[in-house]
Amino acid sequence: MHIDLNSDLGEGFGRWELGDDEALLSIVTSANVACGFHAGDPTVLRRTCEQAVGRGVAIGAQVGYRDLPGFGRRFIDVLPAELTNDVIYQIGALDAFAKLAGDRVRYVKPHGALYNAIVRHEEQAAAVVEAVRLYDPDLPVLGLPGSAWLRRAAEAGLRVVHEAFADRAYTPQGTLVSRREPGAVLHDPAAVAERCLRMARGDGIVATDGSVIELDADSICVHGDSPGAVRIARAVSDRLSSAGVELTPFAASHPGPAPSGGTPPTP
Amino acid sequence: MHIDLNSDLGEGFGRWELGDDEALLSIVTSANVACGFHAGDPTVLRRTCEQAVGRGVAIGAQVGYRDLPGFGRRFIDVLPAELTNDVIYQIGALDAFAKLAGDRVRYVKPHGALYNAIVRHEEQAAAVVEAVRLYDPDLPVLGLPGSAWLRRAAEAGLRVVHEAFADRAYTPQGTLVSRREPGAVLHDPAAVAERCLRMARGDGIVATDGSVIELDADSICVHGDSPGAVRIARAVSDRLSSAGVELTPFAASHPGPAPSGGTPPTP
Amino acid sequence: MHIDLNSDLGEGFGRWELGDDEALLSIVTSANVACGFHAGDPTVLRRTCEQAVGRGVAIGAQVGYRDLPGFGRRFIDVLPAELTNDVIYQIGALDAFAKLAGDRVRYVKPHGALYNAIVRHEEQAAAVVEAVRLYDPDLPVLGLPGSAWLRRAAEAGLRVVHEAFADRAYTPQGTLVSRREPGAVLHDPAAVAERCLRMARGDGIVATDGSVIELDADSICVHGDSPGAVRIARAVSDRLSSAGVELTPFAASHPGPAPSGGTPPTP
Amino acid sequence: MHIDLNSDLGEGFGRWELGDDEALLSIVTSANVACGFHAGDPTVLRRTCEQAVGRGVAIGAQVGYRDLPGFGRRFIDVLPAELTNDVIYQIGALDAFAKLAGDRVRYVKPHGALYNAIVRHEEQAAAVVEAVRLYDPDLPVLGLPGSAWLRRAAEAGLRVVHEAFADRAYTPQGTLVSRREPGAVLHDPAAVAERCLRMARGDGIVATDGSVIELDADSICVHGDSPGAVRIARAVSDRLSSAGVELTPFAASHPGPAPSGGTPPTP
Repeated sequence: MHIDLNSDLGEGFGRWELGDDEALLSIVTSANVACGFHAGDPTVLRRTCEQAVGRGVAIGAQVGYRDLPGFGRRFIDVLPAELTNDVIYQIGALDAFAKLAGDRVRYVKPHGALYNAIVRHEEQAAAVVEAVRLYDPDLPVLGLPGSAWLRRAAEAGLRVVHEAFADRAYTPQGTLVSRREPGAVLHDPAAVAERCLRMARGDGIVATDGSVIELDADSICVHGDSPGAVRIARAVSDRLSSAGVELTPFAASHPGPAPSGGTPPTP
Repeated sequence: MHIDLNSDLGEGFGRWELGDDEALLSIVTSANVACGFHAGDPTVLRRTCEQAVGRGVAIGAQVGYRDLPGFGRRFIDVLPAELTNDVIYQIGALDAFAKLAGDRVRYVKPHGALYNAIVRHEEQAAAVVEAVRLYDPDLPVLGLPGSAWLRRAAEAGLRVVHEAFADRAYTPQGTLVSRREPGAVLHDPAAVAERCLRMARGDGIVATDGSVIELDADSICVHGDSPGAVRIARAVSDRLSSAGVELTPFAASHPGPAPSGGTPPTP
Repeated sequence: MHIDLNSDLGEGFGRWELGDDEALLSIVTSANVACGFHAGDPTVLRRTCEQAVGRGVAIGAQVGYRDLPGFGRRFIDVLPAELTNDVIYQIGALDAFAKLAGDRVRYVKPHGALYNAIVRHEEQAAAVVEAVRLYDPDLPVLGLPGSAWLRRAAEAGLRVVHEAFADRAYTPQGTLVSRREPGAVLHDPAAVAERCLRMARGDGIVATDGSVIELDADSICVHGDSPGAVRIARAVSDRLSSAGVELTPFAASHPGPAPSGGTPPTP
Repeated sequence: MHIDLNSDLGEGFGRWELGDDEALLSIVTSANVACGFHAGDPTVLRRTCEQAVGRGVAIGAQVGYRDLPGFGRRFIDVLPAELTNDVIYQIGALDAFAKLAGDRVRYVKPHGALYNAIVRHEEQAAAVVEAVRLYDPDLPVLGLPGSAWLRRAAEAGLRVVHEAFADRAYTPQGTLVSRREPGAVLHDPAAVAERCLRMARGDGIVATDGSVIELDADSICVHGDSPGAVRIARAVSDRLSSAGVELTPFAASHPGPAPSGGTPPTP
């Protein structure tokens, strides 16, 4: 039995830091690395890629709206054709650093408001799918089961990967409880860890009404932008490992052409 | 006998346009495409790459300081290590669109204040060289003969390509007359064209003091951001062609790994 | 009989120019000056303010979303409290240059996607109203009759000014025909000019279904970002003047405290 | 006996926080508030102004180069005329929030690389002086004794205020020891506090060679972007107070025209 743990990383910018990347990289198996549009500058991208590769963590492109002041958390009604290009630009830039570090971008996961928008926004969902397809149709995409994003990605022939959230409450329908509702976020590390073990085993988890639902997740998203969040992430990782669940990236080493970077790294 | 003509392209941004890219792409053989740091947004990058490939024009990464408000024309005392990463980011992003268009980035030419700085600024010159070397040591670099940039690139094993300027006056030492001096820029299309023919043939050109100097240029830079500039560019192209000088990119189709983009274009 | 003509100005940014500001400033009586968030840099702001004051044109703050790559033309779901602050920042910055030029910001008109959003988006409309009220409750606001923006501004005690569009078709209900519909934009200078004369006189204009509607406009918006647009603006101005309609800013010299700038200009 | 303590504040941006503003505002008497060009967004500016006024701390405009990715710490060779306008823009924007909070911008202090540049860069020093003079010639300016910035400000008739640095080593000539040298920064709170008391009393302090120099400072700059820095700032404040040195802003409530903001606050 195995599962992937993913988390957002590389979200500093210039003088500003965010989250405890080093702690998270010792926990997760997939790193959603910010690409510079909502967070991340080239130096952060490079360091994050190097650290991820150094620890065997898979690099994913965490693509977002072009909105540093809003940290990509505000919906922007960008034209789909422009969104496609914004996403290609981000993946290409990150891939340069991933290759330099000896690996490459292995998957794509949208960030923040873009992630939320393309659960339902068909045109933007299609635009992001198109970007991945054009950049590399072998790249898997990570997202919310039932989203327009994953549905359209599957239709386009992309490999889709389902994720569940470690610390979020779920409705009986299997959707996330809005953060505005009480109880939307779980805070007890032990409870969250136990829940993640059920997710990993394919056992159902308890929804808000007490019913048991199945999530069918290939990856579990943990947060890391607060000390408490890192503690939870570690509790999840420890619980899964001690229960014999192997933590492993869903996106195996990429089968594509070898990196063309100047200094081919030795594995 | 053959020579390359290069020009800056893709320097619009969002609502703002600059230069007559379509006219220039029918004239030049190498396009220095802005990468988004001093000009260019992802949609402009994509369109420019597609148009360049459609016309057989080689795509070069016109990398610059991160300075949209200053159009990359202001020296920035960025740390060399950060400059290296800024340049890698730009090349990677542009390369995504070049590959999508069926080719790839074939050379690197710095823009504006960065171009000027690394004529003498050793640390920044080394930083840009390092970026190219790390990204792809097979990429040629284009620049001013005698610059720290080309000297260090050669030392790092990169292929260096010399350029001359079609419409700029030269000192007896073979350096450019500063734009602040009278007569620094030539405006007569016929005279400029004749001068370029001499450059292409390896004949000497007349310097400001009347002496004849040899420039040894593999590429001639023409400007295109004014109607007059396009007229000059066309005059140069016509004169060279009618004199039997073949216009051809200095950077041949890249010998590296095949593009990994999703939809391999058919030539 | 008198009316105001307003137009967007100062929408260049750094190296990029847009529109023929000089031509427009000889035509209009109110200048909607971009404040740096969707277009305009400090040097453009200063020059535009100086030119406007030099010609007796009233300066309005053309506030927009923080979105240079999108030119403020994409809806952004910014939090109302942050939008209020974004707008205050923009007015304050522009006011510094208006005062330096010997006048001050005399009104506020939102730009692009923000203009369109607050026709109906109550929270964002309230946020912009709040910004004006906090900055200076004596500032009039310019906008579309029937919009949430003007309704809420009136409720907050602000002076509201109605505008009509010189070159746009109107529905029988007095709303604008969407630009996606055929015939949404009028192109004949003489016809547009005649229509504006009717607007100025309070005569009805012909809607798309042939019915006659009254617009009750205190200001007419003309565009200026193309040669054709400037031609139309001039035709409107000439027609109104020759018919004895006085062109005068709706926002008279501000009754507030004297400018506190260092060097009070002499008129 | 009295002295001013100043510190940089409001240097967060969007999602990113920096420094412990609340702690510092309970210590210092003058707040150098970032204006959005190197740090600070409109919401941060507003909150910082409100908190400063609430605690009786004077608001200064901490103006910087337009360089969010570099946090204003990289010299930019911006044209002096453009620098003047960039500074006016920043002061105007901040002043809007200062007035809204019931006070106004009371002084100007350049940030980071701009601060360092105008110690010697005459053209940029003159450009910043010109900005202050144009915005409001009654605004005092804060800076390094002996700098081109203060000399030119004095020549232009501005009030100049000297600052000393609480935790920096000084050469026998009274200049700062470069941060690259060992011992450039002092870390012991008690020693720093004692040194500041000597500064406040006009007693000399010990330079690197053991000689005693007089600094003649009207304000002492303390840092606050690390827990240790806040501890030092508090030690300085406590030591001065317990020794009977009154901590009071050098820039008294501004004698200029009353704030023109919409809702005049009651003190």
